[in-house]
Amino acid sequence: MADLNLIKRFSADSGFLGRYQSLAREVVIPYQEKALRDEIEGAEKSRCIENFRMAAEKLRTGTCDGEFYGMVFQDSDVAKWLEAAAYSLAIHPDPALEQRCDAVISLISSAQHPDGYLNTYFTVKSPERRWTNLCEAHELYCAGHLIEAAVAYAECTGKTEFLAVMCRMADHIYERFITNGTPGYPGHPEIELALMRLYRCTNEEKYKELALHFINVRGVDTEYYIREREICGWTVWGNNPHDREYMQCHRPVREQDTATGHAVRAAYLYTGMADAAYTTNDKTLRDACKRLWKNITQKQMYITGGIGSAYEGEAFTKNYHLPNDTAYSETCASIALIFFARQLLRLEKNGEYGDVMERALYNCVLASMQLDGTKFLYVNPLEILPGISGVAKTHPHTLPQRPKWFACACCPPNAARLLTSIAEYAWMIEERTVYSNLFVSGTLDLCDLFGGTITLQTGYPYENTLRYCFDADMELTLAVRTPDWSIQTELLLNGKPVEYEIRNGFAYIHTAFAKNDVLSVTLDFSVKRIYANANVSADSGKTAIQRGPLVYCAEGADNDGSVLDLRIRQSGQITAQPYSPDLLHGIVPLTAAGERMMNTDALYTYTAPEWIPCEITLIPYYAWGNRDLHQMRVWIPETK
Amino acid sequence: MADLNLIKRFSADSGFLGRYQSLAREVVIPYQEKALRDEIEGAEKSRCIENFRMAAEKLRTGTCDGEFYGMVFQDSDVAKWLEAAAYSLAIHPDPALEQRCDAVISLISSAQHPDGYLNTYFTVKSPERRWTNLCEAHELYCAGHLIEAAVAYAECTGKTEFLAVMCRMADHIYERFITNGTPGYPGHPEIELALMRLYRCTNEEKYKELALHFINVRGVDTEYYIREREICGWTVWGNNPHDREYMQCHRPVREQDTATGHAVRAAYLYTGMADAAYTTNDKTLRDACKRLWKNITQKQMYITGGIGSAYEGEAFTKNYHLPNDTAYSETCASIALIFFARQLLRLEKNGEYGDVMERALYNCVLASMQLDGTKFLYVNPLEILPGISGVAKTHPHTLPQRPKWFACACCPPNAARLLTSIAEYAWMIEERTVYSNLFVSGTLDLCDLFGGTITLQTGYPYENTLRYCFDADMELTLAVRTPDWSIQTELLLNGKPVEYEIRNGFAYIHTAFAKNDVLSVTLDFSVKRIYANANVSADSGKTAIQRGPLVYCAEGADNDGSVLDLRIRQSGQITAQPYSPDLLHGIVPLTAAGERMMNTDALYTYTAPEWIPCEITLIPYYAWGNRDLHQMRVWIPETK
Repeated sequence: MADLNLIKRFSADSGFLGRYQSLAREVVIPYQEKALRDEIEGAEKSRCIENFRMAAEKLRTGTCDGEFYGMVFQDSDVAKWLEAAAYSLAIHPDPALEQRCDAVISLISSAQHPDGYLNTYFTVKSPERRWTNLCEAHELYCAGHLIEAAVAYAECTGKTEFLAVMCRMADHIYERFITNGTPGYPGHPEIELALMRLYRCTNEEKYKELALHFINVRGVDTEYYIREREICGWTVWGNNPHDREYMQCHRPVREQDTATGHAVRAAYLYTGMADAAYTTNDKTLRDACKRLWKNITQKQMYITGGIGSAYEGEAFTKNYHLPNDTAYSETCASIALIFFARQLLRLEKNGEYGDVMERALYNCVLASMQLDGTKFLYVNPLEILPGISGVAKTHPHTLPQRPKWFACACCPPNAARLLTSIAEYAWMIEERTVYSNLFVSGTLDLCDLFGGTITLQTGYPYENTLRYCFDADMELTLAVRTPDWSIQTELLLNGKPVEYEIRNGFAYIHTAFAKNDVLSVTLDFSVKRIYANANVSADSGKTAIQRGPLVYCAEGADNDGSVLDLRIRQSGQITAQPYSPDLLHGIVPLTAAGERMMNTDALYTYTAPEWIPCEITLIPYYAWGNRDLHQMRVWIPETK
Repeated sequence: MADLNLIKRFSADSGFLGRYQSLAREVVIPYQEKALRDEIEGAEKSRCIENFRMAAEKLRTGTCDGEFYGMVFQDSDVAKWLEAAAYSLAIHPDPALEQRCDAVISLISSAQHPDGYLNTYFTVKSPERRWTNLCEAHELYCAGHLIEAAVAYAECTGKTEFLAVMCRMADHIYERFITNGTPGYPGHPEIELALMRLYRCTNEEKYKELALHFINVRGVDTEYYIREREICGWTVWGNNPHDREYMQCHRPVREQDTATGHAVRAAYLYTGMADAAYTTNDKTLRDACKRLWKNITQKQMYITGGIGSAYEGEAFTKNYHLPNDTAYSETCASIALIFFARQLLRLEKNGEYGDVMERALYNCVLASMQLDGTKFLYVNPLEILPGISGVAKTHPHTLPQRPKWFACACCPPNAARLLTSIAEYAWMIEERTVYSNLFVSGTLDLCDLFGGTITLQTGYPYENTLRYCFDADMELTLAVRTPDWSIQTELLLNGKPVEYEIRNGFAYIHTAFAKNDVLSVTLDFSVKRIYANANVSADSGKTAIQRGPLVYCAEGADNDGSVLDLRIRQSGQITAQPYSPDLLHGIVPLTAAGERMMNTDALYTYTAPEWIPCEITLIPYYAWGNRDLHQMRVWIPETK
């Protein structure tokens, strides 16, 4: 069987997402490496590497010369960095970086106990407490991220030392939870999806068995965390073990139908479930995944693809609760939603998974990053109120400008690993069908499979034409996702009509492509107005604007300093302006017919305000906050 | 000097507010008495009376047979109940109630230490800690409420035992903070306004001096609470002593210009400040009060007169931050705003203080009470989202239906004392001018002053005519507030034009009224649309509806079950329907031309929803939530 590692097969060019991939490689990964090594002046210390050094020393000598530093899940920062670095090495060899990765892996290896256990928090701080607090202590979570990194490193570099280390840890976990039958499941899911990857990489059945075990026991014994707390008598954060919905263990996973609790936990869990459902052909599990997906995307998702609307618990709240200015909408949660969508797309070839993936990627995830890649957001609000956002006690989380780095550094490296592995989301190959799911400009090497390459030339998301260029005769089916917003999609082969079949959001072109063939797909880039369900209180009477995959917003910088006083005309035109290469690293601004309220100093007036016709300028949401502090709004009141 | 006790002078009839006053007397006060005595089955225990009994026993014998129960400020519940009972006795003699009050007062007296100190928390629980934690322990707050109750009881019943007890406590406080110069000021203001009342009641200068002291030292030593915490080493709730704005001590009070922190604390403080400014003719203090008033009413007040928009800290947040569904808008805070307004009205005869007082009373405060007086709200949101309100982690406070009683029972007795003393807010007499500030149907006895009574006959707030009837020849100036929403106000004396002067929101009628004269004032009751400042993000594109003093809302019960899907037509009529005596204890519903969105199951659509013309029914905000659980909304999207 050919190696289907899409990361190694695909080379993005300098197009839109290619630029972000370069940013991840050139800015984010080196920056995080420095952070992990505590080499950044004035930044929060990470001590990640130092924690591993101390753990290794303690294992060697029985003692160590310092104290564990950071979050209980600090190890996962090293893991995410190594995973991103692995992908980066696959697309852009860098012997020096690889050498440094090898050294870190060697250090990790030396922090592993003889029984396979690996976690610096417990090794350095309190070995006697290991495995006593699954609810909060993130041991299985850290193991999961390290397993993902090890799998990625093996697949991208061919080196297996790290994989062997993590197999030993997985074996240790297997022994505890399967062989010895110790009860329990992880407070923060992640190990499930990681073990499924490990299974696929090693073909070792026990890892699949272990993944299924954690999925299957979850929420069956709903008292587990309560008993555990009573027995262990210690806590990391004082999380409430009775809050089962927060940890998605309020009922068995196959019986869940509403996404609850911590959004990242939820989406990681569902990703693992969907992978398991695919791998084991488990219909009940697949149905649960589809119900949860439907609940998220039809009841609990922002138009930007953000999920988890509440700061309280970084969590899903209730159906239709999607406040704009207090949105949590964590970057990591949208990344996790993309993971979930990808697994569902494996399960079922339906364009809606790609639609949501694209929505989350181009809007929420990209917005988390400053255009120059140097600053980040965890939280992605849909409205910025200067003087309130990031300042009021109700808005501590909605920073109106991106800060440099975080003490809890989960999102930036998560974005980095997504962007460096974007090929896994852009393409999918099954039998003789090549699925083009996300439209990333670049070349896909299919020489071993079909005897040639496909190069996708596109100015997407600012140009609506996708040109698939074949450099050899290739007999395959090309399936191009037709986004839900593209009301009319036109396909031409070498400029002439081509036969194709539309099925579940994909256009299937079954043909023998010839060398130099160009399949061009023209998407409907007309500007769309979006309306929310009436139950979304925050959006009533409002509209949001989208063009192609990009959701737009109005920002004060382009609108004479204020946007809260604007309303948009229902009947007015919204016009795409010419591409402005110098504006916000290159965007297509939109202009809309609107009105501006003549505001006064009064808090309330009994006289209807005067509305002055004006032109509203809109920019892509992902580009907000790259100038000074301004009001920003995605959902804009609409009038006839 | 004649006794100006307006409570004794005024007898409300069975009109609108008279009915509420009866409810307070017949339902709220007896219910709370039972609660204080722990006689209510299934309700949260209060143990207020029991705490006093134990404190008395401990003082007598050196020990007691139980433990203090409840909040650190539990004593204040007894105080507020006694204060409400005192007012009730003044307007409606009840010897049995008075006897029970006397017994409670006697018990309170026996819980007083020989040095005057009085606080059951410290006496029962930890006498050694008294006065060590002003930041959190509410000793001065409880003293303040007991002083207010003692003053009220003396003024309303003529009995002075309680007053003597509280003078001894005030003397004790004076000795500590003035004679001995111990530093410190109360974490929760209240003592200031109470001492001003005590000063007026006793004419004892030292109480005024002590009130001024606490006002003057506040926020001068901004490190006080931080040092105190270090020294005392104990905490009640773990409040952050560095959060100076929460406790209004971030700067000297005369330099404050933005209302900050816990809204009840703030408004109690400002009330004391305004009283002191009036009493001492302190211009700088008055100016600070006016700045704070302006900030509250022009930047931080809901259209319902609610203040303190955040659940986090029950607090003011930032200018223009007035979310509707997550509003805190505590009942007690609006009551405190009414106190503040009354003191400002003493300082300056300006109708705007009465306007806000009326807004807060008829909307926020009355909404806190079920129409039958048996259930209450602490928190008064302007939008109810069933399935989210009171359920989502972001909305624990916005209960969509009124519960029976609360563990922390501050708001219901506060409303009771306001309603039983409503005459103090309705009327004001200065020299030969009688100010009619709130329009409460009933009779004001001025026989000793002007030789007769004035009876105000009115169906207000549902009828727009105020009839002032004179039962004797009376030479006085009647000053009737002309509300800001009454664009045209007509005054007639016995049906004929009368000369009057409009000055700062009052119509002054200087004349010699004759026996049987009737001055009728007709207010503009046309339905008004209110528009919020564009910076209030939650209200943009929306309008609120008001008629007379009543703010209206749309509730699902009158609108086919849903209101989030409604928008109101800018050009359409809003019509006052005939008074419906059987609907919600008698209201005037409004109907407005509107449109209903044809909602679908989709979370987002790219097609503009269809809007079907419909009639929107509006009810007064104070009456919401008296039927089943429904959507409710004050601010409604408006379209051309």
